Amino acid sequence: MRAVVYQGPFKVNVERVPDPKLEQPTDVIVKITSTCICGSDLHMYKGRTAAAPALVFGHENMGTVEEVGKAVPSIKKADRVSMPFSVACGFCKNCLASFTGFCLTVNPGFAGGAYGYVAMGPYVGGQAEYLRVLYADFNCLPLPGKSEHEFEKDFSLLADIFCTGYHGAYLAEVSPGDTVAVFGAGPVGIMAALSCIIRGAAEVYVVDHVPERLAVAEKIGCFPINFDQGDAVKQIRDKRHGEGVDKGIDPVGYQACAPKTGQELKEVPNAVLDALTQVVNPCGILAIPGLYVPSDPGGVDAHAQKGYLLMPFGKIFEKGLTLRTGQCNVKKDNRHLRDLIVRGRAKPSVVVSNVLSLDQAPMAYDKFDKRVEGYTKVILKPSA
Amino acid sequence: MRAVVYQGPFKVNVERVPDPKLEQPTDVIVKITSTCICGSDLHMYKGRTAAAPALVFGHENMGTVEEVGKAVPSIKKADRVSMPFSVACGFCKNCLASFTGFCLTVNPGFAGGAYGYVAMGPYVGGQAEYLRVLYADFNCLPLPGKSEHEFEKDFSLLADIFCTGYHGAYLAEVSPGDTVAVFGAGPVGIMAALSCIIRGAAEVYVVDHVPERLAVAEKIGCFPINFDQGDAVKQIRDKRHGEGVDKGIDPVGYQACAPKTGQELKEVPNAVLDALTQVVNPCGILAIPGLYVPSDPGGVDAHAQKGYLLMPFGKIFEKGLTLRTGQCNVKKDNRHLRDLIVRGRAKPSVVVSNVLSLDQAPMAYDKFDKRVEGYTKVILKPSA
Amino acid sequence: MRAVVYQGPFKVNVERVPDPKLEQPTDVIVKITSTCICGSDLHMYKGRTAAAPALVFGHENMGTVEEVGKAVPSIKKADRVSMPFSVACGFCKNCLASFTGFCLTVNPGFAGGAYGYVAMGPYVGGQAEYLRVLYADFNCLPLPGKSEHEFEKDFSLLADIFCTGYHGAYLAEVSPGDTVAVFGAGPVGIMAALSCIIRGAAEVYVVDHVPERLAVAEKIGCFPINFDQGDAVKQIRDKRHGEGVDKGIDPVGYQACAPKTGQELKEVPNAVLDALTQVVNPCGILAIPGLYVPSDPGGVDAHAQKGYLLMPFGKIFEKGLTLRTGQCNVKKDNRHLRDLIVRGRAKPSVVVSNVLSLDQAPMAYDKFDKRVEGYTKVILKPSA
Amino acid sequence: MRAVVYQGPFKVNVERVPDPKLEQPTDVIVKITSTCICGSDLHMYKGRTAAAPALVFGHENMGTVEEVGKAVPSIKKADRVSMPFSVACGFCKNCLASFTGFCLTVNPGFAGGAYGYVAMGPYVGGQAEYLRVLYADFNCLPLPGKSEHEFEKDFSLLADIFCTGYHGAYLAEVSPGDTVAVFGAGPVGIMAALSCIIRGAAEVYVVDHVPERLAVAEKIGCFPINFDQGDAVKQIRDKRHGEGVDKGIDPVGYQACAPKTGQELKEVPNAVLDALTQVVNPCGILAIPGLYVPSDPGGVDAHAQKGYLLMPFGKIFEKGLTLRTGQCNVKKDNRHLRDLIVRGRAKPSVVVSNVLSLDQAPMAYDKFDKRVEGYTKVILKPSA
Repeated sequence: MRAVVYQGPFKVNVERVPDPKLEQPTDVIVKITSTCICGSDLHMYKGRTAAAPALVFGHENMGTVEEVGKAVPSIKKADRVSMPFSVACGFCKNCLASFTGFCLTVNPGFAGGAYGYVAMGPYVGGQAEYLRVLYADFNCLPLPGKSEHEFEKDFSLLADIFCTGYHGAYLAEVSPGDTVAVFGAGPVGIMAALSCIIRGAAEVYVVDHVPERLAVAEKIGCFPINFDQGDAVKQIRDKRHGEGVDKGIDPVGYQACAPKTGQELKEVPNAVLDALTQVVNPCGILAIPGLYVPSDPGGVDAHAQKGYLLMPFGKIFEKGLTLRTGQCNVKKDNRHLRDLIVRGRAKPSVVVSNVLSLDQAPMAYDKFDKRVEGYTKVILKPSA
Repeated sequence: MRAVVYQGPFKVNVERVPDPKLEQPTDVIVKITSTCICGSDLHMYKGRTAAAPALVFGHENMGTVEEVGKAVPSIKKADRVSMPFSVACGFCKNCLASFTGFCLTVNPGFAGGAYGYVAMGPYVGGQAEYLRVLYADFNCLPLPGKSEHEFEKDFSLLADIFCTGYHGAYLAEVSPGDTVAVFGAGPVGIMAALSCIIRGAAEVYVVDHVPERLAVAEKIGCFPINFDQGDAVKQIRDKRHGEGVDKGIDPVGYQACAPKTGQELKEVPNAVLDALTQVVNPCGILAIPGLYVPSDPGGVDAHAQKGYLLMPFGKIFEKGLTLRTGQCNVKKDNRHLRDLIVRGRAKPSVVVSNVLSLDQAPMAYDKFDKRVEGYTKVILKPSA
Repeated sequence: MRAVVYQGPFKVNVERVPDPKLEQPTDVIVKITSTCICGSDLHMYKGRTAAAPALVFGHENMGTVEEVGKAVPSIKKADRVSMPFSVACGFCKNCLASFTGFCLTVNPGFAGGAYGYVAMGPYVGGQAEYLRVLYADFNCLPLPGKSEHEFEKDFSLLADIFCTGYHGAYLAEVSPGDTVAVFGAGPVGIMAALSCIIRGAAEVYVVDHVPERLAVAEKIGCFPINFDQGDAVKQIRDKRHGEGVDKGIDPVGYQACAPKTGQELKEVPNAVLDALTQVVNPCGILAIPGLYVPSDPGGVDAHAQKGYLLMPFGKIFEKGLTLRTGQCNVKKDNRHLRDLIVRGRAKPSVVVSNVLSLDQAPMAYDKFDKRVEGYTKVILKPSA
Repeated sequence: MRAVVYQGPFKVNVERVPDPKLEQPTDVIVKITSTCICGSDLHMYKGRTAAAPALVFGHENMGTVEEVGKAVPSIKKADRVSMPFSVACGFCKNCLASFTGFCLTVNPGFAGGAYGYVAMGPYVGGQAEYLRVLYADFNCLPLPGKSEHEFEKDFSLLADIFCTGYHGAYLAEVSPGDTVAVFGAGPVGIMAALSCIIRGAAEVYVVDHVPERLAVAEKIGCFPINFDQGDAVKQIRDKRHGEGVDKGIDPVGYQACAPKTGQELKEVPNAVLDALTQVVNPCGILAIPGLYVPSDPGGVDAHAQKGYLLMPFGKIFEKGLTLRTGQCNVKKDNRHLRDLIVRGRAKPSVVVSNVLSLDQAPMAYDKFDKRVEGYTKVILKPSA
């Protein structure tokens, strides 16, 4: 089959690789109809991880069941399904506690596995024509609708970013009437902001400096804050008559940037955490679905390279803040978010920038990495 | 009345100060029967805060109601009462949400007030014969028993350290069957460990290097870990066949110490947080009731002086850990802990080292500060 | 001052009664700007309670502070405020646990007090020009806006029915993606349904047989179910391909009706509870904010008169259902719901049928009781 | 193999039945080392269910893995395991939400399946030499210890009654300092009371009239209340100076009895629910792990036969009570309770009355049913 294969820093090709096969009676094979490029794919693409050439990318996958193992009672051929980016067993201690992003079975020695991702186990990615899904009863979410086109763009975001954004709002325990600041209006930031609205937030401030992104935030009912126009914390407090917010969400992670002189940006890994500590009220929560890593050879200094950040912990304690971190446990929420899509209560596809054929993947990676306008969230169609 | 008055670094006297008076119809005056010296008093005593001379110390107070304001329906003269160390109004946004340690009313411009503590409002401390208690209906916890002696030592710990230790177990969400590591066996550490047992923990590891403290930990049903005998994280993992623990508690705070060469200790502010990050399992919780401050002129380096710590945030994220911080909201728990004492299910006084007269306070502060054996938790008796 | 005074079954007058005065330093006097007639006022009006003549009605009150006691630091003259229908002290065991509808202080011997309501304490109602509010720091919710007209209709529902409806959604633990059935589209039913939407429900079915009410339900995004057109449970299951719903809400209470032959209605006290037991899925929740009473002289049979109902408890157990009951704890939610109104995210005034002068109260009670169209939720204006 | 086979009302035999075989690659076969007789087995034994002859009883099973299917990665031959009484798939909507007692997969058309129980699916019971366990990764709880004798009696209660009793304390949300009433001191009642202690309850009242049972309650730290000595509710209130309790647990279910004249007992299905409603404080919780059924041909009247009970719902509402019902989700708690046993923090085997060979089952059923002293909780040993 054809697949997007990593070649080395800043290089992916579409190549032929072996078709996946049923390896266990609990597996299924899915024909991919939509698979997205994720911001976290860029970490590998840019060579900031230990990813080796020949890795097939793709952890945001959906499609149609092609072949079914003998011990998969709940899934039939031709079912339309979404697969959480994290592979999970369903029976280990963490899966039982709904921490399916930290499965102890599928990637021995580590908590968590994923498709097409360095250090996350031997699971071939889904930017390809077919995907092997293990523990299929557990890892396939059935989707309604016969046609490939009904909600396809919305559903394609259930594998990762809609759930990851929602995870931010969940970690922040956003509840009706809350005030929230989301630092970053990329796809995950917008999904987090949308999820705050879904959970009944009264006010959501979304911080960025790209006008197009801020326009999306405003469109879904949030207050846009452009940090090119001054300190974001001060802008939010000014709008709130000096008060801070109840909750803060960091959808960005360790490659956070802050303005240098003359508006040039530089990487400041603790910039978002520092700002959130300032803007969130005492007793509040900082939710951190954005990725931080314990080893980053390209980090800005020796500490950052080992995953250490300078944090305002005295202030965090004085304010009695809670920090909740970690990648999303997709399985916990994807069913509910699917139902909101089906009932017209959520339209996450507002962040999809374009739908391309698999062959266009190399171009798409290049433009996404260079932050070319119009390439913020790309869906690939293997059968196109 | 006589009171313990701060004179300057390493100096307190017992002096005469004005008697407190009812200032509001919602006030009461309490005759103090027991008042404890707290580890956090030492921060001021050692000159590591902005405390000015003439401050009356004492925030761990209990006694008998002497005088009652006209608008205090629930309290009568002669009632035996415990007062949470934090002063709270009962009606601000934070008090309504049970965050009584972060009251927005009593110390304008700051979230939280306390008796006898720098920067926590104008509330005279209770290491004295009498104490003015404002919002008395809210701030007095009635205690059963007619005699001063029935449970007096146990009850005296309800104002702060039993609740603060319990707060650690609460923040860590310790539940039946859990495994917990508590780094520090001082009075708060022991109270945290005891609270883990109360909440049904299956295994509690308590780390320290003072044999007497570790003996207390063992006595209440915990596993003692002496870090003089090797890396504490490794010791715990060895006992657990390589596994970590579900939850970790830091009862120590910013003056954490770690062994230097030859077992000499030095202050390493992030030592406990770093160790907990290593020993707690993915998806676990770090509870931090120990004090960290945003400004510490005596800090070990420029960052520490501004309350910034180098934290293993990449690892924290990778493990999906939650960090919950902040001082205790005594009011939330003191009623329940009182009932456990009365029913014989909790005996926190196991940590009380000695009961002294108020006049002995200067000597007690000196010995407590110098960590003289047998002066770990002192109760002062103003009427003795 | 002028006030709505109960005379006996089916009779209220507007009469002169003594002006309220500050009785405690913790009191304030509020000049009423809006006060609503509640469905529960009808229980008294119809003579189905022990209410004695001369009682001043009115527990849904808002207005402007006219006079302030000496020990009320947070409230100033001219503040615009909403008062929860239940009077609460803020410091008893139940208030501390946010059960402010079950205060143990204000109505000795009973859990809970209210303005203008039989057996709920000596608190004069607010269908009058002025209202005495005790424990004013605790019982006044500040409202923004200078004018009496800005959000006045929405804010007037914060004292009771918006919060009571929200309480239903809260008791049902409605969360994003949930499916809910609300049996009854009166004002509280609509507020419950709206609150389910606010909390992110995917599907909300609202059952009634009055087309106007069902039209409101549909307008706010719910599926209307008209029980004149067939069994409501069957209709809901049919729409859901045989499945039930996650949660059910009973906003109606003990005067529930069910169709007799030929569509005539009769009172069947367990009709809603029975239907909810049938339609809610195993492991679901039945939230019951609608009033049931332990003594009802007008009950349909001897059991009902003593508050006993025949319940399908075998089925409830088999399904593992949870039943959560009780009147609303307004204080827990009114702040958040206020903020949703201010930010335009909730418009509860959709249920307000008309705004009348106080003098029109007798006419309004009569028409409301007779279910005259257009008199479903009346606001009275004492100053008009 | 030999198994305990139902013959008809009041008759079981030990007979030869076919050995179980691996039917799916996700199955295992367990050699039973201990299997208990449960109070709910008596419902079938007495002919009060639709159970047909030839049914093999036994849902409280533990043993050693004998044979392992090809798709069971986490279990090996010779592993020592406990099986929850309810069979569950691990991937349906209910299992994902930890409601493993209400699995939607294993017993189509019904929520929940179990071994050896009428209407709970085709799963042969474990009062036999061997047991087929499906979805074995999910349904086997590994147990430590090599010998059959280490903790064997305690572990044998993990399949059902320790977890079911704990479920009562969990449903009641018992937390440190709580006061609880448990109505019934049979094996499940004692397990519920013990679980309240484990969760930190300050006071636990256990009501019964069998002195031996009450002695066990007292031994584990509870207050025994003998209802032969007067109304239980009154006795509890008297001991609490008129106050009620925070939480109540009904471990008994629909065959509840109440004293008739002269202390003779008769079945009064709502007796426990009525008493709990009286004794639990406003805002409290009634936890009901005891079995109620929607169809009971032997019920005391026409309503009871259809599972309808007369309930004091007016009082329930007035008090704002919560009722939480349903059979235990063993999988949610068995791991934690196992760890408490292993660490010596829980000794549930205090309720085991005797250990018999499988052949003694007919005698044991007879004596258990007749409430012969010393036959309250029997463990059967198929290999003895």
